[in-house]
Amino acid sequence: MSDRKEFRDLSSPEEAREAIASLNLTPEPEEVPLADARGRTLAERIDAALDVPGFDRASMDGYAVRGRDTFGADEADPASLDLVGTVHAGEEPSVEVGESEAAEISTGAVMPAGADAVVMVERTEEKGDSVLVRTAVAPGDHVMLAGADVAAGERTLGPGTRLTPREIGLLSALGVESVPVRGKPVVGIVSTGDELVRPGDDLDSGAGQIYDVNSYAIAAGVEEAGGDPELYPHAGDDYGEMERILREAADDCDLVLSSGSTSASAVDVIYQVIEERGELLLHGVSVKPGKPMLVGTLGGSAYVGLPGYPVSALTIFRTFVAPAIRNAAGLPDPETATVEARMAAEERYSEGRTRMLPVGLLEDADGERLAYTVDKGSGATTSLVEADGVVEVHADTAYVAAGETVEVELFSPDVRPPSVLGVGEDDPALAQLLDSLDRPRYLSVGSREGLRRLRNGVPDFAVATGDANPDIDALELGSYEREWGLVVPAGNPAEVGGLTDLVERDLRFVNRGSDSGLRTSLANAVADLADERGTTRHELTDAIAGFELAAKAHESPARKVLAGQADAGLGLRATAEKLGLGFVSLGTERVRVLANPERVEKAGVRDLEAALDEKLEPVLSEFSGFSR
Amino acid sequence: MSDRKEFRDLSSPEEAREAIASLNLTPEPEEVPLADARGRTLAERIDAALDVPGFDRASMDGYAVRGRDTFGADEADPASLDLVGTVHAGEEPSVEVGESEAAEISTGAVMPAGADAVVMVERTEEKGDSVLVRTAVAPGDHVMLAGADVAAGERTLGPGTRLTPREIGLLSALGVESVPVRGKPVVGIVSTGDELVRPGDDLDSGAGQIYDVNSYAIAAGVEEAGGDPELYPHAGDDYGEMERILREAADDCDLVLSSGSTSASAVDVIYQVIEERGELLLHGVSVKPGKPMLVGTLGGSAYVGLPGYPVSALTIFRTFVAPAIRNAAGLPDPETATVEARMAAEERYSEGRTRMLPVGLLEDADGERLAYTVDKGSGATTSLVEADGVVEVHADTAYVAAGETVEVELFSPDVRPPSVLGVGEDDPALAQLLDSLDRPRYLSVGSREGLRRLRNGVPDFAVATGDANPDIDALELGSYEREWGLVVPAGNPAEVGGLTDLVERDLRFVNRGSDSGLRTSLANAVADLADERGTTRHELTDAIAGFELAAKAHESPARKVLAGQADAGLGLRATAEKLGLGFVSLGTERVRVLANPERVEKAGVRDLEAALDEKLEPVLSEFSGFSR
Repeated sequence: MSDRKEFRDLSSPEEAREAIASLNLTPEPEEVPLADARGRTLAERIDAALDVPGFDRASMDGYAVRGRDTFGADEADPASLDLVGTVHAGEEPSVEVGESEAAEISTGAVMPAGADAVVMVERTEEKGDSVLVRTAVAPGDHVMLAGADVAAGERTLGPGTRLTPREIGLLSALGVESVPVRGKPVVGIVSTGDELVRPGDDLDSGAGQIYDVNSYAIAAGVEEAGGDPELYPHAGDDYGEMERILREAADDCDLVLSSGSTSASAVDVIYQVIEERGELLLHGVSVKPGKPMLVGTLGGSAYVGLPGYPVSALTIFRTFVAPAIRNAAGLPDPETATVEARMAAEERYSEGRTRMLPVGLLEDADGERLAYTVDKGSGATTSLVEADGVVEVHADTAYVAAGETVEVELFSPDVRPPSVLGVGEDDPALAQLLDSLDRPRYLSVGSREGLRRLRNGVPDFAVATGDANPDIDALELGSYEREWGLVVPAGNPAEVGGLTDLVERDLRFVNRGSDSGLRTSLANAVADLADERGTTRHELTDAIAGFELAAKAHESPARKVLAGQADAGLGLRATAEKLGLGFVSLGTERVRVLANPERVEKAGVRDLEAALDEKLEPVLSEFSGFSR
Repeated sequence: MSDRKEFRDLSSPEEAREAIASLNLTPEPEEVPLADARGRTLAERIDAALDVPGFDRASMDGYAVRGRDTFGADEADPASLDLVGTVHAGEEPSVEVGESEAAEISTGAVMPAGADAVVMVERTEEKGDSVLVRTAVAPGDHVMLAGADVAAGERTLGPGTRLTPREIGLLSALGVESVPVRGKPVVGIVSTGDELVRPGDDLDSGAGQIYDVNSYAIAAGVEEAGGDPELYPHAGDDYGEMERILREAADDCDLVLSSGSTSASAVDVIYQVIEERGELLLHGVSVKPGKPMLVGTLGGSAYVGLPGYPVSALTIFRTFVAPAIRNAAGLPDPETATVEARMAAEERYSEGRTRMLPVGLLEDADGERLAYTVDKGSGATTSLVEADGVVEVHADTAYVAAGETVEVELFSPDVRPPSVLGVGEDDPALAQLLDSLDRPRYLSVGSREGLRRLRNGVPDFAVATGDANPDIDALELGSYEREWGLVVPAGNPAEVGGLTDLVERDLRFVNRGSDSGLRTSLANAVADLADERGTTRHELTDAIAGFELAAKAHESPARKVLAGQADAGLGLRATAEKLGLGFVSLGTERVRVLANPERVEKAGVRDLEAALDEKLEPVLSEFSGFSR
């Protein structure tokens, strides 16, 4: 490992953009059927090959006449014309209209020879073999001349035109069956790593396998940017295999993207392949998280190596690669891809390189957009859905002030701020209640952290267990009780009776994290027991094997029990019942939903309040041990 | 025809919205592969079925150790640990790490039993069978615990979540192979009219056939709104056929749209079918152009009848139908579907019903959006691409003032204002030059109308023939000359020698419209001839058969000659050569490109100026009879 490559000379973001812009990933134009052309971009100008309409056309239902025969006609003194026949739309006229004659005609029908105007039906009256015309029409009235709409030879749409429904309509009028459009760049996606398994396949966690996140996420990003993604099999760190896959991808694609290739050995292999088969233009960009980025060519194709962590990969893809794909496909930058927002809290920064700071979005009560930083480490997949985009913070920026306006580059033009942002305790009834709201976002950070964030004013609401906290200026929207205790194997084979068994017996226990309200309830019960026994809390917790073993979600300890990895876990009666496990009750705790006082007028908060009023009761009845 | 249905009681736009909202067009949810799920909306909440990661995972390349073995270690006094093996990502560890031992480990690998922390490789040095560790790590450092990212049982995505690349990433991490999403409403499209021919098929203009514009345009709109369009064969006005098609569509689709059914007989048939097979909720909406709109049910499906004219059909579709399709598909209203703009000129209005006023968009020099009315009659297909959307003008509005801010409902969220808007003379060299610009819009309204519009300040530039006009405050960006005359059949079999032949011989002539610069040049030549002969212009033009026969585009008269329908047409030498026809030169005229003085700083105008400077020469050289 000592000879591994180091990124000593990082390029600037501008150099990275230039390097990618210098690559040619524009495919040949292609011809697509008109029915499939929506969203594509015309590769060539389209001139009309025919007149629209192709004939002099009646534009009203009525009677085709010679205009001069109606001169002077009015309600009082109609002109009487002889009926000589009828012309329907879509048929060749079988009549001619002579002097003092008229033919019944439908909108869209061919004007019969001799006629030069149409009298609308409302101003006429049929009388036997003749028609009374109660108005005068001039030659040309209610007739659309051949070519009056579009004339053969006219320039109708220029190259570079994006085809939306209306252009499809115009091309239909011209009878166009297929149109020449800019090709979709074919983008090969190669995720590297021996540990990757494609979603849907079986996973062997013991062997360190994980599902491949980047392939499908980047493929979706490629599609969104107008490219045609092509997934390749995962490449391991074996040189031969990786060379074979990269070479195959380079043969078939306009652009090859690799990701997950940040381990030293994988980087080494990719370096070798590029140096042998192509040209490395740039390695490492001075932007967090772009350090492991590679740009080059592979055979005749363009190549970009993305970081392996999902948020990093998507950030670099969105910032540097997607614009190049859109450009190659002839698509404009989507207007909704970047939005302005005010920073909800200060963010300090001092890394000496540009940072793509992941941020989440929300709206205040006035609908103004706010951004707050999301930083769970770029390795966390959940950051993907907690962050809505990134803010580019320049290397020489020491901090971004609260209230400062920033540009947020969204991960997708389809990303929208949630209707309401909540933080706090992980709770199944709450999760169920949120399902009835439109696009809420809820971060299960625990009661303690939830209250801290509410105090800082960022979220719209917090959910916390325990008694009302006078420190916090918040409006309680609702509350309910939940029963908690020890989740044990089905039938409680170890006959766990309560907390004392945990302390006195050699049971493997799984706790929740210290931010969790459940953990606080347990700590309080331990403190009571210590008081009762005249000992310290610390002594008791030390005696519980696993008291410090904090599991992430409210079901996690119970699932450890289910998996036979623990004898007891901190949890809810509802969870034990859901998973078919035993339960030893230790008490109840109140769960409170607290609104940020500055957001009580916000629509999402009002919707939450209404849901708590109207929908909480039926939700609680679905979970054992929950009550108002 | 006397008993045709009349729309006596028009409903309000609100009633129309309510009627459509009352229809059920929401399809069943469906399960789609993750790879196809982008852009869809989750039908159900997704909870994590597994922990992510599924094992305690090294988050750095380095050495797996027991943290306590490194306590006190630093650069000066490293801890020396015995190397017991290596763990790669994607393999089951074959070693355990005991006291004072270390195992080499890759990012993403499973932590071997016994180890509780990772020392990053940069702070170590291998020495034979041992490794020197130059820093202290605490238990848990650089290790991501099982379930720390996502814990099994956690609520990860709620119902109603739009799936963008990042959600696809999160679902990938959960190993999800397919996801339950809101179904796409299947929308059957039935264009009615005996005269319709599908694009790509042969057209018999003599029999009054025209290409069907609405089917493909509405289908593209359905797709854009998240529906799944299904095109049905054109239905004629025959009751049996239309009933069969409508019934088949109702059986297969969630919503049936008909269009082009505005002729009296077609409306009668549709009425009958709906009255027999479904329920008519509403006929006729008090909005121009919604008068012929129908809303009802057909069997168990929803039904909406759209107007037949393309701009009208798309307007009603966009305003009333697309929101219902999006709602059924679970998609949000696109943010770019409505934009604000200032009216570029006053628009008077007095129709007593709401009007959807078609407008085009452009930007002024400061990038502010302007709207100008486009009104060529709703029957004109070209309005489709000249108008970008509609402004809803209420029934009691007498006029919309110039400068007033209006909301423009775009025909598609992908519609964008052109980079530059030009109006004026139809000219092939200009059209070619425009192809080199990015998204220009050019309306061939003729020199006279172009100058009139430039005077009113709406367009960015105008193109006109003839001498500089001192009335107009404009900046000339460039000019060139073109040779004009009479286009005659190849070889000039009638031996047309010039204007005198037109006047003196019985030749069928085709002229251009009176706004055209070519027509002005011809009129001037006729005036000169009249002077020469001591007669009046009028007498000469009366002697030319077809002098008043105005054709739309610069090629149109020549094409009439080509089709054998005329003996001579007004045109350019370049057109005659392009079509392989003969040409009798009558002179040259100067074509001038004039900028709106308030837009000279606009990027699109500067681009046009640069193109005139740099690209005009090569463009002119492609056309005979053109010169600087």
